[in-house]
Amino acid sequence: MTLSDRMKAVVLLSGGIDSTTCMAIAMAQNFQVYAMSFDYGQRHKFELKAAKKIAAVMNPEEHIVINMDLGIIGGSALTDSINVPKHRQIDEIPDTIPVTYVPARNTIFLSFALAWAEKLGTNNIFIGINAIDYSGYPDCRPEYIDAFEKMADLATRAGVKGAIKFKINTPLINMTKAQIIKKGVQLGIDYSLTHSCYDPDAAGMACGQCDSCLFRKKGFLSAGIDDPTIYKK
Amino acid sequence: MTLSDRMKAVVLLSGGIDSTTCMAIAMAQNFQVYAMSFDYGQRHKFELKAAKKIAAVMNPEEHIVINMDLGIIGGSALTDSINVPKHRQIDEIPDTIPVTYVPARNTIFLSFALAWAEKLGTNNIFIGINAIDYSGYPDCRPEYIDAFEKMADLATRAGVKGAIKFKINTPLINMTKAQIIKKGVQLGIDYSLTHSCYDPDAAGMACGQCDSCLFRKKGFLSAGIDDPTIYKK
Repeated sequence: MTLSDRMKAVVLLSGGIDSTTCMAIAMAQNFQVYAMSFDYGQRHKFELKAAKKIAAVMNPEEHIVINMDLGIIGGSALTDSINVPKHRQIDEIPDTIPVTYVPARNTIFLSFALAWAEKLGTNNIFIGINAIDYSGYPDCRPEYIDAFEKMADLATRAGVKGAIKFKINTPLINMTKAQIIKKGVQLGIDYSLTHSCYDPDAAGMACGQCDSCLFRKKGFLSAGIDDPTIYKK
Repeated sequence: MTLSDRMKAVVLLSGGIDSTTCMAIAMAQNFQVYAMSFDYGQRHKFELKAAKKIAAVMNPEEHIVINMDLGIIGGSALTDSINVPKHRQIDEIPDTIPVTYVPARNTIFLSFALAWAEKLGTNNIFIGINAIDYSGYPDCRPEYIDAFEKMADLATRAGVKGAIKFKINTPLINMTKAQIIKKGVQLGIDYSLTHSCYDPDAAGMACGQCDSCLFRKKGFLSAGIDDPTIYKK
């Protein structure tokens, strides 16, 4: 198979464990990867630095960063001056949609991915969502992804021509964080490059107490793999 | 009915005839209007100036402009250095999806509108698309809008709670440009404030020969209403 025979795929890359593993899986499936990140006014902008480092190491065909201001819309602890909730233990996280939910974020991200996929002439998009350790976000469920695919076929020139059907690939959707980490280690990912914390300090050090840090800690622990992260607490 | 009893609605406002008429219709239906425009690297950025003037005159509750760079994705004469096609007559416009099609643009716009609607606690979004003089864009068809609504209910916190179902209102969808203009005049719109041209000169003067100018000219002519626009040709 020559390079030109390889299928292209747009991969959403936030710089966390899930999106990085998702990109490694797309690469292992022999896709030519076009990675896409977003600077959306997130308080944990450190994840963008992580995404750039990861792209430099894993070397996708291209890596672009879309700038946009979601803070002007607001409604989330990730973009507003609302405190990120902290807990000592993972079982203290309430079983409700958290204040770190950003309204319609995955829909916005996937819409940009759809635009780029159409431009590149591919029907494949990868997103590293999962429905198990998904922290209660509605836009991480399989039925949401199915509905997005149906809409995408109707939204686009490609869909009208009937030439291709869009496929939102979610290889992690039924995996636990521990399974994701094990898979990533098999694929050679250096997780010290990734960033998960919603509320890092100025130097990028993880707080160790937000939902995202707690899921990360538990994932490495359950996987029986050393966590390379330095946490504040 | 007091102000607090009135329903909120997010209205997409580009600054053209359709979106302006759509906003007037939402206001006539007694919605509290939250207008949203986009600075997406469009070559006809003059439409944003028009949107701001229109908002100043029509006075929605709020008007926000989302900045984002679609040019980095490319694939359209509206964001790239591809020439905007020009024709002398409307019947010279080919019956295909034109190069002014921006990949997934309405999906991106509606995704932001969805985020703001969720933040504002409303289920109503207005978009001034129409399926007749729609210039061949796939994301202007009713079946696309239906699919977006289904996806939106699954994408959001509001949808999960089952409290509300999102409604993408498309009051212009079955109207001709002439009918839209007549409706707008009835509602008191000053169309001299609106901008349609895809390729205006530096002063904002309409070219008179792009698809958008030709549809505008034909609309006023068919409506039997004086066109307030000054065209270069």
